[in-house]
Amino acid sequence: MDLGIRNRHAILLASSRGLGKACAESLAREGVNVVINGRTEKDVHDTASELAAKYGISASAVVGDSSTEKTQLLLLEACPEPDIILLNGEGPAPKFFQDIAEKDFSESLQKTLIGPLMFVQRVTPGMCERRFGRIVAISSAMVKSPHSAMSLSHGPRLGLTGVLKGLSKDLAQFNVTVNQLLPERFDTYRQEQMAQVMMQVRGMTYEEARADQVKSIKAGRLGRPEELGDAFAFLCSAQAGYLSGQNIQLDGGSYEGVF
Amino acid sequence: MDLGIRNRHAILLASSRGLGKACAESLAREGVNVVINGRTEKDVHDTASELAAKYGISASAVVGDSSTEKTQLLLLEACPEPDIILLNGEGPAPKFFQDIAEKDFSESLQKTLIGPLMFVQRVTPGMCERRFGRIVAISSAMVKSPHSAMSLSHGPRLGLTGVLKGLSKDLAQFNVTVNQLLPERFDTYRQEQMAQVMMQVRGMTYEEARADQVKSIKAGRLGRPEELGDAFAFLCSAQAGYLSGQNIQLDGGSYEGVF
Amino acid sequence: MDLGIRNRHAILLASSRGLGKACAESLAREGVNVVINGRTEKDVHDTASELAAKYGISASAVVGDSSTEKTQLLLLEACPEPDIILLNGEGPAPKFFQDIAEKDFSESLQKTLIGPLMFVQRVTPGMCERRFGRIVAISSAMVKSPHSAMSLSHGPRLGLTGVLKGLSKDLAQFNVTVNQLLPERFDTYRQEQMAQVMMQVRGMTYEEARADQVKSIKAGRLGRPEELGDAFAFLCSAQAGYLSGQNIQLDGGSYEGVF
Amino acid sequence: MDLGIRNRHAILLASSRGLGKACAESLAREGVNVVINGRTEKDVHDTASELAAKYGISASAVVGDSSTEKTQLLLLEACPEPDIILLNGEGPAPKFFQDIAEKDFSESLQKTLIGPLMFVQRVTPGMCERRFGRIVAISSAMVKSPHSAMSLSHGPRLGLTGVLKGLSKDLAQFNVTVNQLLPERFDTYRQEQMAQVMMQVRGMTYEEARADQVKSIKAGRLGRPEELGDAFAFLCSAQAGYLSGQNIQLDGGSYEGVF
Repeated sequence: MDLGIRNRHAILLASSRGLGKACAESLAREGVNVVINGRTEKDVHDTASELAAKYGISASAVVGDSSTEKTQLLLLEACPEPDIILLNGEGPAPKFFQDIAEKDFSESLQKTLIGPLMFVQRVTPGMCERRFGRIVAISSAMVKSPHSAMSLSHGPRLGLTGVLKGLSKDLAQFNVTVNQLLPERFDTYRQEQMAQVMMQVRGMTYEEARADQVKSIKAGRLGRPEELGDAFAFLCSAQAGYLSGQNIQLDGGSYEGVF
Repeated sequence: MDLGIRNRHAILLASSRGLGKACAESLAREGVNVVINGRTEKDVHDTASELAAKYGISASAVVGDSSTEKTQLLLLEACPEPDIILLNGEGPAPKFFQDIAEKDFSESLQKTLIGPLMFVQRVTPGMCERRFGRIVAISSAMVKSPHSAMSLSHGPRLGLTGVLKGLSKDLAQFNVTVNQLLPERFDTYRQEQMAQVMMQVRGMTYEEARADQVKSIKAGRLGRPEELGDAFAFLCSAQAGYLSGQNIQLDGGSYEGVF
Repeated sequence: MDLGIRNRHAILLASSRGLGKACAESLAREGVNVVINGRTEKDVHDTASELAAKYGISASAVVGDSSTEKTQLLLLEACPEPDIILLNGEGPAPKFFQDIAEKDFSESLQKTLIGPLMFVQRVTPGMCERRFGRIVAISSAMVKSPHSAMSLSHGPRLGLTGVLKGLSKDLAQFNVTVNQLLPERFDTYRQEQMAQVMMQVRGMTYEEARADQVKSIKAGRLGRPEELGDAFAFLCSAQAGYLSGQNIQLDGGSYEGVF
Repeated sequence: MDLGIRNRHAILLASSRGLGKACAESLAREGVNVVINGRTEKDVHDTASELAAKYGISASAVVGDSSTEKTQLLLLEACPEPDIILLNGEGPAPKFFQDIAEKDFSESLQKTLIGPLMFVQRVTPGMCERRFGRIVAISSAMVKSPHSAMSLSHGPRLGLTGVLKGLSKDLAQFNVTVNQLLPERFDTYRQEQMAQVMMQVRGMTYEEARADQVKSIKAGRLGRPEELGDAFAFLCSAQAGYLSGQNIQLDGGSYEGVF
């Protein structure tokens, strides 16, 4: 399937590894030039180089925390007229609700809600003028089925979900779409980390820890990052211009609810 | 119907007028002792006196911004063991999405999301211990159908919705329920104010402005504050202990969606 | 709380026992005259007599399957101008999806979807004319979180949910509201029956079977029928005229989803 | 993007024209062999011939009403081991709720709910055994935002939505996914027909009628059938195996609700 986005330009926040990198790779494969971002210099540069070499596209590297104005300006310097934006970022660690301090909330809100929205403000006027834009956020399945220990994650993320939805209604007429992917349990370094934690905390073997992660997933397996990358690429395609304001779960069919 | 809450104690944030006052009055009528709160000293005292006199309950007055630690501690001083909590607060003014500054977001998030959650942290341990709690937030119909000009309202409110939902799952076992009411277009001072704005901005007569407010409401009228007050009182009743985690729209049947 | 419906008239389908009876009792307590319906003659008459004697209201008994035209006409003969309607009926037994025959579907759709809608057609014109109507259906929590073995239940019920929602938008202007209650695990004869089945099939003791029923309920207990009855009565109240098109879960806070 | 489904086999109900044909074409382009179905012999054969010639795949033609056992058996004869199923069918005409007869409901339920489910029963065991299946239904945006005049459409369709969701949870472990597309206002013969009706009934010019159809669409245009076809093809792809139980609106960003 030709996605009709060859030679377009994309800025991908937090894309040096994991799900963000998978998104960048799916776009690069379709001939999209990408800006790779992350906080670890080596990872960012390695990913950019790798994709440029593998797919023959142009790939820039911008190191820094994408929720800050400074990094956002650098990103737009590297790519002044982005057609595609991936909103992504590392989630906070779990914390018992009663232990969450005001500062925890305001930090998480800054990173996960305010930062991304400021970036959206920066890119949408140009997208509207150029009559093409694809904004996709990697959110979390928890925005639909929250658990209190992840309040620092789903609180800000659900706020973002609402603001993006409201915004999507304004932008549709300009062929600018806004959608979210809601992943649950993908096979990234994060699940690796969590397996290590479970081995220490619960005395499991590595195999038991990995098996445990799959228990709540109806598909009986973790998601593969490239599956999310390709869903993302489809949402960025020319032919997805009539699809906006959607929250698509990538969770192995695990969500209980009808809608 | 006997709501089974006579002599219980309630703290109602932002309850000196409008929907918050209606909630206080519905509880007072059922014999609940109330703490009235608001930022305008006279309004707070007047409402407390009025309800105490009219219903023979005890009504305290705590003046201050309920999203601050200082006021929250005063509220708990006035009522150390609340059985019922109303989370309520004035919403922000509309603002074009592109005009919203970082500071607007952080202020609104502090007031509408962080502040209420800090208060919830303060009251839930006691409620769980005493095996009774009713937490109800007055949110907005917009958390389900957002418009970009109200991003400062539905962003924080939807974040709150998610955190409260996650929390409700933990608290159910202690007979502590958490629910939200989602009003749209009630006949309060706010609609009066908006009518005045429309008269000036659009050159409408008062009658035209008021008629215009009703256009989007399928019931063909504004809601009456006491209708919301009584729905609130029902959610606070002893017999509503099995009803938790719900978001109930009070919108004259106007919402488009099935769920 | 005065529900403002003294001397009104209600027809309650499938109300001779269980949740339907609890609804009838809550209305009778508020001074509403009721028509009791069910398929077991003795139960219907006993319930009608009991409520009439206990609450001093008028209670008629109409025996028959309420999804049939014949019984619907008898119900309207007993109460030609109903103000309140309870849509209720026994659900079908579980069945593996692959074992469901066409006939199973058409029977269940007739009973659970078509029958109730035909009754709604019969009563709404009068309600609109008289400018008061409260239509409430007891549906099931499964309409939001379906499991394949209950397809004969949630399929028709979800269809009904959609039609009632569409209808609620037309009726709001006439002070006719349409809402649903979505119960999960109430302490009725049905859970008794299921406990018996579990004792036989899984070799559990009665206590184990009853404990097992509570496992999935976050409140840690079954619902009490009178809790559902009172929620129903509130939805039928005069002051609930601005609340329509809602699906309220009564599930001990168990549903995973935010909305 | 390589969808990984070359040489797979698909049965597409109601695919001789409109959205169904667009789905067939998107699959054919990806190298999938298709069975075309419809009730008009010439259309079915023409579409099959056209796709076979254009894309070099095998395309069979099965004429008949796909909700009947007879046609379903013919479809499975033409393609005994389908990997992909499109559930699709013409919707009923609008009808005032009060004018809908029992027979209207039972006919529509047979066509739109029971028929498709019987077909799903026929194909899922084989899909599970072969560890690959993609079931996609073209539903309607109205299943999320129903209007009473379309009760014969959204009633059955919402019932189907629920049953398919329940089923999707069982099938995920076998790499069999079940999803729905919810279109609103695509540029097919149906909108042409409706424009003709509006010209006659409301005395509009053709241009006015077409403009009117776009008014409620936030994208400011009708959807293009090939946009739906490609979304369908993506859902059928090998890499969409972790995406199941979703209802994706293709409505130009028009739906009001967050979820």
